[in-house]
Amino acid sequence: MQLEFWFEFASTYSYLAASRVEAVAAAAQVDVVWRPFLLGPIFAAQGWNDSPFNLYPAKGRYMWRDMERQCEGYGLPFERPSQFPRGGLLAARVARLGEAEPWLPDFVRAVYTANFVEDRDIAQREVIEDILHAAGLSAELVDAALAPENKQALRRQTERAQELGVFGAPTFVVGGEIFWGNDRLGQAIGWCAVHGG
Amino acid sequence: MQLEFWFEFASTYSYLAASRVEAVAAAAQVDVVWRPFLLGPIFAAQGWNDSPFNLYPAKGRYMWRDMERQCEGYGLPFERPSQFPRGGLLAARVARLGEAEPWLPDFVRAVYTANFVEDRDIAQREVIEDILHAAGLSAELVDAALAPENKQALRRQTERAQELGVFGAPTFVVGGEIFWGNDRLGQAIGWCAVHGG
Repeated sequence: MQLEFWFEFASTYSYLAASRVEAVAAAAQVDVVWRPFLLGPIFAAQGWNDSPFNLYPAKGRYMWRDMERQCEGYGLPFERPSQFPRGGLLAARVARLGEAEPWLPDFVRAVYTANFVEDRDIAQREVIEDILHAAGLSAELVDAALAPENKQALRRQTERAQELGVFGAPTFVVGGEIFWGNDRLGQAIGWCAVHGG
Repeated sequence: MQLEFWFEFASTYSYLAASRVEAVAAAAQVDVVWRPFLLGPIFAAQGWNDSPFNLYPAKGRYMWRDMERQCEGYGLPFERPSQFPRGGLLAARVARLGEAEPWLPDFVRAVYTANFVEDRDIAQREVIEDILHAAGLSAELVDAALAPENKQALRRQTERAQELGVFGAPTFVVGGEIFWGNDRLGQAIGWCAVHGG
């Protein structure tokens, strides 16, 4: 059975999920399909023009403290970035382009590390090019990611997220069921085990 | 070490937490302090005049499905109520009155059962009186709960929740740390074990 992992590069909890989804899924012999998408249009559709962690300060203060504790628990590095949320559009376009490529998981994790560990601005083209270069990939992937058909493909993917009922990130989708949040990864994997063919 | 369990009677996920907090805490030799409060004023302060599960329909659809799955996982009965959210003010006043009484946990669980299993309107005085009666308690507790000093005590308790940084329910508070959501109960208990004196 397949687990779809829907993630947004600006999302702190997507960083947690991206760091562990492969290992957790592999242990249960579940295949992961990576689904980059954008939360911006989904938030805009419900009247938010910013991250709910900025719009609702108590929720935001909690999230930053919770992230520190969660990262400590997982043994993950974490530094609160100087800017939040950072624009994940370009990174998402590259990820959409490489969705089925073997380099995708490492690229995704490198982008999260840049944003949430190294405090680098992932919205900048040169930062994404650096990440590709460090991974032994061609910076020309950025040009390909900016082609109209790839932009359109990411747009369609975000629309599909909305159709599935996705309203936040990360979200796991298994056989029509959606599971929201890094905390629900175990349950989504369990769903595969019980309902998988 | 003490674990404060902050709950709201209208909250679906508080029902999950109320059903298991005592057993989980007892297994770890942690004392539970029950803290009824009202989410209404806290939501109003961030511009919401209704439950976020009603204001944001995708989030609401997800919550109802998630509750079904969670209750199945915990072996808890659950029926989606015909009205949501139901006013928990009177029940919270009774719970505030009985905060330190041995009957409190059973009363709280009976109110959740009325709301989320039996589809009864817990905002009605006669429903609360029925619950008290079934528990062998005096319905006169309702009169005592409606005394001005008890109303004021609940108001202060909700203000204290806000001061602590509580923005949703359930929330667990341990030694100044807050943990939001039924999913975080295990982590809150773990915090007691590591940081308890």
